[in-house]
Amino acid sequence: TFDAQINNTNDSIDAFFLLYAASLVFFMQAGFAMLCAGCVRINNVQNTLLKNMLDACGASLGFYTVGYAFAFGGSFDDEYGKSFIGSENFFLMGVENDSFWLFQFAFCATSATIVAGTLAERCQMTAYLAYSIMLSAFVYPVVVRSIWSKSGFLSAVAADPLWGVGMVDFAGSTVVHITGGMTALIATMILGPRTGRFYDLRGKPLAEPKEMPGKCMCVPSFVLKCTFILWFGWYGFNSGSIISLSLQDNYLVLSHTAVNTTLSAAAGCIAALFLSTIISERFTGEISFNLQYAMNGCLSGLVSVTASCSVVTSWAAIIIGFLGGMLYIGVSKLLVKRRIDDAVDAVPVHLASGIWGSIAAGLFATPKWMEQVYDNPEAGLFYGGGHLLACQSVGVLFILATWAVEARFEPTGTVLKSEREGRI
Amino acid sequence: TFDAQINNTNDSIDAFFLLYAASLVFFMQAGFAMLCAGCVRINNVQNTLLKNMLDACGASLGFYTVGYAFAFGGSFDDEYGKSFIGSENFFLMGVENDSFWLFQFAFCATSATIVAGTLAERCQMTAYLAYSIMLSAFVYPVVVRSIWSKSGFLSAVAADPLWGVGMVDFAGSTVVHITGGMTALIATMILGPRTGRFYDLRGKPLAEPKEMPGKCMCVPSFVLKCTFILWFGWYGFNSGSIISLSLQDNYLVLSHTAVNTTLSAAAGCIAALFLSTIISERFTGEISFNLQYAMNGCLSGLVSVTASCSVVTSWAAIIIGFLGGMLYIGVSKLLVKRRIDDAVDAVPVHLASGIWGSIAAGLFATPKWMEQVYDNPEAGLFYGGGHLLACQSVGVLFILATWAVEARFEPTGTVLKSEREGRI
Amino acid sequence: TFDAQINNTNDSIDAFFLLYAASLVFFMQAGFAMLCAGCVRINNVQNTLLKNMLDACGASLGFYTVGYAFAFGGSFDDEYGKSFIGSENFFLMGVENDSFWLFQFAFCATSATIVAGTLAERCQMTAYLAYSIMLSAFVYPVVVRSIWSKSGFLSAVAADPLWGVGMVDFAGSTVVHITGGMTALIATMILGPRTGRFYDLRGKPLAEPKEMPGKCMCVPSFVLKCTFILWFGWYGFNSGSIISLSLQDNYLVLSHTAVNTTLSAAAGCIAALFLSTIISERFTGEISFNLQYAMNGCLSGLVSVTASCSVVTSWAAIIIGFLGGMLYIGVSKLLVKRRIDDAVDAVPVHLASGIWGSIAAGLFATPKWMEQVYDNPEAGLFYGGGHLLACQSVGVLFILATWAVEARFEPTGTVLKSEREGRI
Repeated sequence: TFDAQINNTNDSIDAFFLLYAASLVFFMQAGFAMLCAGCVRINNVQNTLLKNMLDACGASLGFYTVGYAFAFGGSFDDEYGKSFIGSENFFLMGVENDSFWLFQFAFCATSATIVAGTLAERCQMTAYLAYSIMLSAFVYPVVVRSIWSKSGFLSAVAADPLWGVGMVDFAGSTVVHITGGMTALIATMILGPRTGRFYDLRGKPLAEPKEMPGKCMCVPSFVLKCTFILWFGWYGFNSGSIISLSLQDNYLVLSHTAVNTTLSAAAGCIAALFLSTIISERFTGEISFNLQYAMNGCLSGLVSVTASCSVVTSWAAIIIGFLGGMLYIGVSKLLVKRRIDDAVDAVPVHLASGIWGSIAAGLFATPKWMEQVYDNPEAGLFYGGGHLLACQSVGVLFILATWAVEARFEPTGTVLKSEREGRI
Repeated sequence: TFDAQINNTNDSIDAFFLLYAASLVFFMQAGFAMLCAGCVRINNVQNTLLKNMLDACGASLGFYTVGYAFAFGGSFDDEYGKSFIGSENFFLMGVENDSFWLFQFAFCATSATIVAGTLAERCQMTAYLAYSIMLSAFVYPVVVRSIWSKSGFLSAVAADPLWGVGMVDFAGSTVVHITGGMTALIATMILGPRTGRFYDLRGKPLAEPKEMPGKCMCVPSFVLKCTFILWFGWYGFNSGSIISLSLQDNYLVLSHTAVNTTLSAAAGCIAALFLSTIISERFTGEISFNLQYAMNGCLSGLVSVTASCSVVTSWAAIIIGFLGGMLYIGVSKLLVKRRIDDAVDAVPVHLASGIWGSIAAGLFATPKWMEQVYDNPEAGLFYGGGHLLACQSVGVLFILATWAVEARFEPTGTVLKSEREGRI
Repeated sequence: TFDAQINNTNDSIDAFFLLYAASLVFFMQAGFAMLCAGCVRINNVQNTLLKNMLDACGASLGFYTVGYAFAFGGSFDDEYGKSFIGSENFFLMGVENDSFWLFQFAFCATSATIVAGTLAERCQMTAYLAYSIMLSAFVYPVVVRSIWSKSGFLSAVAADPLWGVGMVDFAGSTVVHITGGMTALIATMILGPRTGRFYDLRGKPLAEPKEMPGKCMCVPSFVLKCTFILWFGWYGFNSGSIISLSLQDNYLVLSHTAVNTTLSAAAGCIAALFLSTIISERFTGEISFNLQYAMNGCLSGLVSVTASCSVVTSWAAIIIGFLGGMLYIGVSKLLVKRRIDDAVDAVPVHLASGIWGSIAAGLFATPKWMEQVYDNPEAGLFYGGGHLLACQSVGVLFILATWAVEARFEPTGTVLKSEREGRI
């Protein structure tokens, strides 16, 4: 019959679309791995890369066994109610269509791998493996359930969302990037800086932090390549988050999301490049352009727009990306000043831009796009809505608080620290 | 209702398809950047890469603000008539479905980035930025309007095309590659060769041009990687140009285009490899195979078939690629003889093959495929049509003339030249 | 009409899907090329890469002219009967929809390029070219016809399959990987090890084999990148093998296949990493983790699940990948012991895992998925079926025997050997 045929056709499109998006997001693993490899010293390249590899594998097995169950278990059933953790669908049991798992796994792996670069050269393999499994199997799923599943207390797709709207985190500025970035921040603070970066061998602070550039030749080309790979992958990351492409008029959301992603990336790159040039001109009197800042500014633009890419106008996406790029420069310099050693600038890129992006959705979301994407005409502050901004703030604070608590209780801190003695 | 449902399904496929194609074309940025990085000396890698980055970002913002309006503004309205430049849809205002913009932006960025490699090591950042914005916001859109929009005087999709057929430039041998390649040629002639390439420090011509290979280790693997990335991206570039995949039988065009692209790439590679081997054997008496020629021959084959990939038979695609590969070798050697310094051979690959490809469409287009793709049974010279060849020739001359004029009037030439003093 | 419209829509999806899958599989060429480049010594990088390039080009032309005809010629006609080699559709004549060719070409190129790495540093260019054309135009197509075409005596889609079920080789553990891996094994045995690898210059066996690592700096990042590229490509490789995505409920197969691919890759990686760590701990007393083994274990997991990814449960995919990863370590060490020099471990990864994967399909295939994918409820041994396991064993033996015979008769052996004198 007609209905059965068109449903099968639409299901085919949706499954294919999620495969496309998931494969692009998965490919970002290559980008993150190269980014790390380009930023660490040559004798540590192999170790850092192995961590990236284990992130992908650990996330896959961790998310299959328990992670998915914790995140989405039972939540497609409308009667299920709200909960912080799921207890069905372990090992994908009872799940008929696996394509959603595939897409969510790719996100989980991304969240885990954000941390690998920050910890470069400082963490034992077994400690890292313990971290990786804990993050992808427990922490990340709990965050996902709260914000993305129908059972989440913050979810915008719940039957009865918080303050009538819930939190809008379309593709994960909060879920993926704040979670990953916050983990990176806490871990690097526990582990302390690389030997010789901020302190001399006797522990006396250096007057100037020592640059520790990657020792590979050709590093800039490595790292630029990564930036393009990540930007490319972001088309899957952001656009894919529509999930059900074939629903009425969702194809308009698809294109709009991709366009906003593009514009925000460009604006972030240009903002960071020019701000860093202006700053360095004021200090040194010479005009010079820094590729590293341009590239990380681009990534910051991408992270910033991730929460709101489907619900804001294109000019707003440019503003969000532009401010994200400038924020990146500021936070990056702040970290160095506070002697926090982040080898790949993952904290400013993912954590700072993630927070800004989550808040920005509460400012710029338009009623028209909110209606199309979330069936809910509540809008951002600049369009007269205040509930959304409140939800966004609660969401951000929730993640930060969760992490602060988990960082205290979970044994990883101790493990990380004890293992630190073992090498450099 | 049935019609509404199937229309939504078809729109979903088309938007998804354009996202797929645009993301692949965008990924070519990584290929072009690596190609450049592999060919310049190590101290200039960072500068060259930053240019690539700015190309992508500049094209995105330039094409959003004014470029798209100049190229396609108002042209979807049949009443609009012909014009050289559009004056609607600035900032995407009034555009409901953004997916076409996304795809066109990716093309625009490609056209801009072709030039980065040629100018390696010779152009100031600010001058380059001025060039990049001018190309993507003004020059390229004017060319696009003439050939691809319904309002273009050369367009094959206009209501009343030139000589009953208009110019067939399916995926942009003319629009993208001649425009990019011609810019590269003019810029390198204005800037002159790298110091020490053809002349000694006192300006005396060298007996033999000095090879200036990239100093990165592992360069060949970099560059081969790029070739595969570009070939991969070309599946989006050429196949994506169908735009409306869901129209009746367009899926046949899709596959045919992809197959022709593959065969032409292979033929170009093999032609260039063997011609260069034969030439070097005649001069040195030794048989040796040159990877660089093979890879650029492959790219030449891809550029050559870009104009005609949807309207020629597969054996014709092989011939077009084969001749493109041989032409590349000839033009590359000619440039060296004329002491024109093209660090990445972008002129022979993009300009020479672009011209050949545009003409080839006027020779090999078959009535059957012209009917399917352009609703017009006019064919190439070898199938008894002459109008198409005439249109193709006019198109090529138009671009070359446009550029010759713009090169005189626009201030970039002066800027480029004056900045040249500043550094090597 | 309704039927015509929905058929066109479904055809569009299928053609687009095959283009997506083919482009991902094609992109694996970049992964294989980099893998080779990372493993050979610097002065041989250019030669090795040129072989990779020629594999892609040779496969394209060889498969267009005769390969496709030999493999699938006439076999879509139900009246055609069984045969070992086709004799229609040369030069794609009479083929209306080219998308199937595109996908099959990408597989053919993969099969050819598996060999390039193994022979690193030992084979003349002309000999290699002869090999490459022979493999992609003759050997590979004959294998494909037997197993994948409707005319194949082993085919699971034939009207009257062997023992009522035929051989299940969903995405080519047998067809692609055993064929490629067996070629690699025979060629490396004919050519002998690299000079100095196992024997000193006078031919005396060394006490310990000499490690010959790639001399590029940054090699680990190269090679990890490749692993991710290949894993990424595998989503096209395995999922794409559904071919007709739009058939009733095939989208469920799509997602299931992609999930199984992911899990098996992860399991293979972890198995190989830990087994190698345990072994090295027993011999040296120190715990160390080896990136190379992790990555090749991952590839072994992917190869192992390729035959059965659509017809086994997810937990079975994990077991298959896990055992594949362990088998890889064993066979890799065995080859070194037998003084067989495989520069990139292609034999353990492709041949050993290919054989294991083909057998595993005969053990783990479930009636439910067999019904959906092959319209045939025959299942693997663990579900009470024996016919399938018998077919799988016949298939593996058939390929091994074919190659043993061809290795004797075809002139490549002699050519390879005679050319060996020419250079190291």
